[in-house]
Amino acid sequence: MQRLSQHQRGLTLNELARRHDCVLRGDPGARVRRVAPLARADSRCIAFFLQRAYLDDLRATSAGAVILSERHAGECPVAALVTPDPYGVYARVADKLHALMPLSPGVHPHATVDPNAEVDPSCEVSAGARVAAGAVLERGVFVGANVTVGGNARIGEGSRLLANAAICESVRIGRRCIAHPSAVLGADGFGQAPGEDGSWFKIPQLGSVRVGDDVEIGASTVIDRGALEDTVIGDGVRLDNLIQVGHNAHIGEHTAIAAGCMIAGSARIGRRCRIAGHVGVAGHLEICDDVVLLARTVVTRSVREPGAYAGSMTPMEEVSSWRRNAARFRRLDELYRQVRRLERRK
Amino acid sequence: MQRLSQHQRGLTLNELARRHDCVLRGDPGARVRRVAPLARADSRCIAFFLQRAYLDDLRATSAGAVILSERHAGECPVAALVTPDPYGVYARVADKLHALMPLSPGVHPHATVDPNAEVDPSCEVSAGARVAAGAVLERGVFVGANVTVGGNARIGEGSRLLANAAICESVRIGRRCIAHPSAVLGADGFGQAPGEDGSWFKIPQLGSVRVGDDVEIGASTVIDRGALEDTVIGDGVRLDNLIQVGHNAHIGEHTAIAAGCMIAGSARIGRRCRIAGHVGVAGHLEICDDVVLLARTVVTRSVREPGAYAGSMTPMEEVSSWRRNAARFRRLDELYRQVRRLERRK
Amino acid sequence: MQRLSQHQRGLTLNELARRHDCVLRGDPGARVRRVAPLARADSRCIAFFLQRAYLDDLRATSAGAVILSERHAGECPVAALVTPDPYGVYARVADKLHALMPLSPGVHPHATVDPNAEVDPSCEVSAGARVAAGAVLERGVFVGANVTVGGNARIGEGSRLLANAAICESVRIGRRCIAHPSAVLGADGFGQAPGEDGSWFKIPQLGSVRVGDDVEIGASTVIDRGALEDTVIGDGVRLDNLIQVGHNAHIGEHTAIAAGCMIAGSARIGRRCRIAGHVGVAGHLEICDDVVLLARTVVTRSVREPGAYAGSMTPMEEVSSWRRNAARFRRLDELYRQVRRLERRK
Repeated sequence: MQRLSQHQRGLTLNELARRHDCVLRGDPGARVRRVAPLARADSRCIAFFLQRAYLDDLRATSAGAVILSERHAGECPVAALVTPDPYGVYARVADKLHALMPLSPGVHPHATVDPNAEVDPSCEVSAGARVAAGAVLERGVFVGANVTVGGNARIGEGSRLLANAAICESVRIGRRCIAHPSAVLGADGFGQAPGEDGSWFKIPQLGSVRVGDDVEIGASTVIDRGALEDTVIGDGVRLDNLIQVGHNAHIGEHTAIAAGCMIAGSARIGRRCRIAGHVGVAGHLEICDDVVLLARTVVTRSVREPGAYAGSMTPMEEVSSWRRNAARFRRLDELYRQVRRLERRK
Repeated sequence: MQRLSQHQRGLTLNELARRHDCVLRGDPGARVRRVAPLARADSRCIAFFLQRAYLDDLRATSAGAVILSERHAGECPVAALVTPDPYGVYARVADKLHALMPLSPGVHPHATVDPNAEVDPSCEVSAGARVAAGAVLERGVFVGANVTVGGNARIGEGSRLLANAAICESVRIGRRCIAHPSAVLGADGFGQAPGEDGSWFKIPQLGSVRVGDDVEIGASTVIDRGALEDTVIGDGVRLDNLIQVGHNAHIGEHTAIAAGCMIAGSARIGRRCRIAGHVGVAGHLEICDDVVLLARTVVTRSVREPGAYAGSMTPMEEVSSWRRNAARFRRLDELYRQVRRLERRK
Repeated sequence: MQRLSQHQRGLTLNELARRHDCVLRGDPGARVRRVAPLARADSRCIAFFLQRAYLDDLRATSAGAVILSERHAGECPVAALVTPDPYGVYARVADKLHALMPLSPGVHPHATVDPNAEVDPSCEVSAGARVAAGAVLERGVFVGANVTVGGNARIGEGSRLLANAAICESVRIGRRCIAHPSAVLGADGFGQAPGEDGSWFKIPQLGSVRVGDDVEIGASTVIDRGALEDTVIGDGVRLDNLIQVGHNAHIGEHTAIAAGCMIAGSARIGRRCRIAGHVGVAGHLEICDDVVLLARTVVTRSVREPGAYAGSMTPMEEVSSWRRNAARFRRLDELYRQVRRLERRK
């Protein structure tokens, strides 16, 4: 998303320290205008230090200031903002110095807004965007180039729909959400009734998608509309790119899901879960709050206890040895029974 | 896809029972106008019952009628349509009460139709759509907002291309198909000739994509065009979201594939297969008719017998025990040999 | 990509043999105009032979000429271009006979080019495309229908952006690159700072994406912009469809990656690697040059030695036996310990 390349006047270290509860070591009146990596920062930049791998960069930095923890503050050759949460403070400082580009309110002449759509005058609707009849864009919504907003969709205050995203009919998006390029919200769920001859009859998908506030939806991520009820994405959810969320799924508040996950229909995922890449979640099951799933896990039963779970990922190795081990997998049950027999015979 | 929120006049239970071979218990003249879940249905709604988990909802429902099987008909407090296939009947009733929005024939002034394209006057071409020279849209085709139809593509009667889909040049789509938002049909296959220095030379992809009748293609699903011959999708195939179909693949009639599957080039998949999420199919192999593949299976050899197959999915467990088991996987072959030795020594 | 269906005048076998260092057997003056499969080729076509599976087609071909290796030249009933690399020669001959459609320079009246964008007059900008302020399109760039090019992006000479692709602000693409339909370059990386209450604070993504020359990016593939530095794609890289490349990842020259791979943030992949489908690469690790990764491998540690690696893929089998084996996986560590005990006791 387009942001300012630097803060116009800069902010004083004093201001930053007070705003983010940091202990300041250095000149309170010094100003920084942008963030930069330790190795490339000059005196107008503020950097951050987190990982020991960058200790040499820290010692040699020319930054105006560095955000870091007490533990490494002694190694910092320049002004320091000391905090127990350098990453979180960095995120907020960067967001302040590099604010999102302000909107240019209005509807581009090459956009197509239906006369029966309701677009607040503070919105920016870009070239090639299409807003259909009955759609409502609340204050300060940004609709990017070639975005489509379907009939009766509602986009909450301050949300941003980026290039080529498709928001289908009747989808409701909360406030301050972001739909990244080519995201699709509200496509039909995959509901098919099997016939006796093996053919399929498409089941009308009559629900919609309801997205809470402060949700981020990654590029080319697809959230299907519900069959009868809605698919629901809770407040503060973070979805990475290329994720599938099936019809009638519920994703709880503040859950974060990494790229390539496939969440099947009617799955219910709790709050504050952290789901790594390529995870699969089967349909019609529940995952409770505060569950961590490692990459590539397949969830085929409900998870009722918070904790970290894994599966479906055997260690990488050279192809020759992997081939032998994988082949033995097919005899694992037999092997288990052999061991049992041997034990009994001793 | 946009559907009517209810049937204008409603349908009588008698009509529905006769049309769908149901036994009617209740007032034949009562009318229903829309479908609803058991718990939210009022007297103008028809609901369905399938899973015992919803038995309490059934017993308490205020629906005008319920579609269900003989076995549970006794539990239904309201009128009942009794059938051995409640799901199939529900699908058809829902489709009747909530028909697709009728088209508004014509080309939107903000669409771009090449003068050498052939668009039947019954088609609806939405704002931002582009139809290139030589393309043919048969009767009743819907082209959604910001869809692109390439040169010489042909879209069969009654097919619907939804927002931001891309149908590339020369692709042929049959009748009554649906391409969901951001689907891509006819992108170049991944054909690369390796050079001695490790570089690649792109192989022209000169085939196309041929899609049969009654096919549904999910959001952000990609079907590549063939290298020399065509990639072929049979009648009645159902593809979920975010699927890749490689060049020259063939998918047989009525096969259904769930989200996130990757079908490599020149794979031939039979008819009436059911393929679950995240499955991978290697190139240049065959899967016969009536094969079921469980989630996450990797198919690296041809499947010549109908049946259900699985692989590549070990059970989910807590990270600590998973770590131990996964580590042992690397010694599985060694373990197998140890057991053999022990057995011989007894 | 749209190519000529045949070469206007055709090329002589003599010309082709000389250009591609082949030994010609047959009439040097005979002309071929297009490529075709052995079984469908007529005397104006040139075909190629690679796999023994097609030996019958070779023996019965009516092609004007066949590209093949010395070993099978004796089986060819028509003129032959004999070469140690039939696939490579075929690729180049096909590219010559079926050249890309030449551009129709100019900006379509339904495209939207900002007055502050710089578009070379040799470029073709299609209907529905949007080129934002500060963007630069070098000589001979093709911008397809409904493509969006963000502010200050730069597209190198001869590159082609196909339908509905989204190139975000400040992304730099080299020369002769192809972005296939719905590709997304420069979406925000997935950077989220965790709060104590489980909520997330979005970390501004201030880097960009830098793509080298001769790169091909598949349909619906997403390359995220860097957090502070750039995400970098080296010269000659080939990315298939539906791939995710996380922020700050580096992909070395001539590496090819198949569909459905998820490359996490800050991963560094070397040159000339070949990565099969559905592979996952964790963040902050390095893969050296010349590494081959089999399908479905998960890379969770750095790979420092060239070679072929696999993991995470157990063999496909019938569901009933798979279920038993998968269940035993959970006891694999226990089994290992039992065997150790048994061995000690002998």
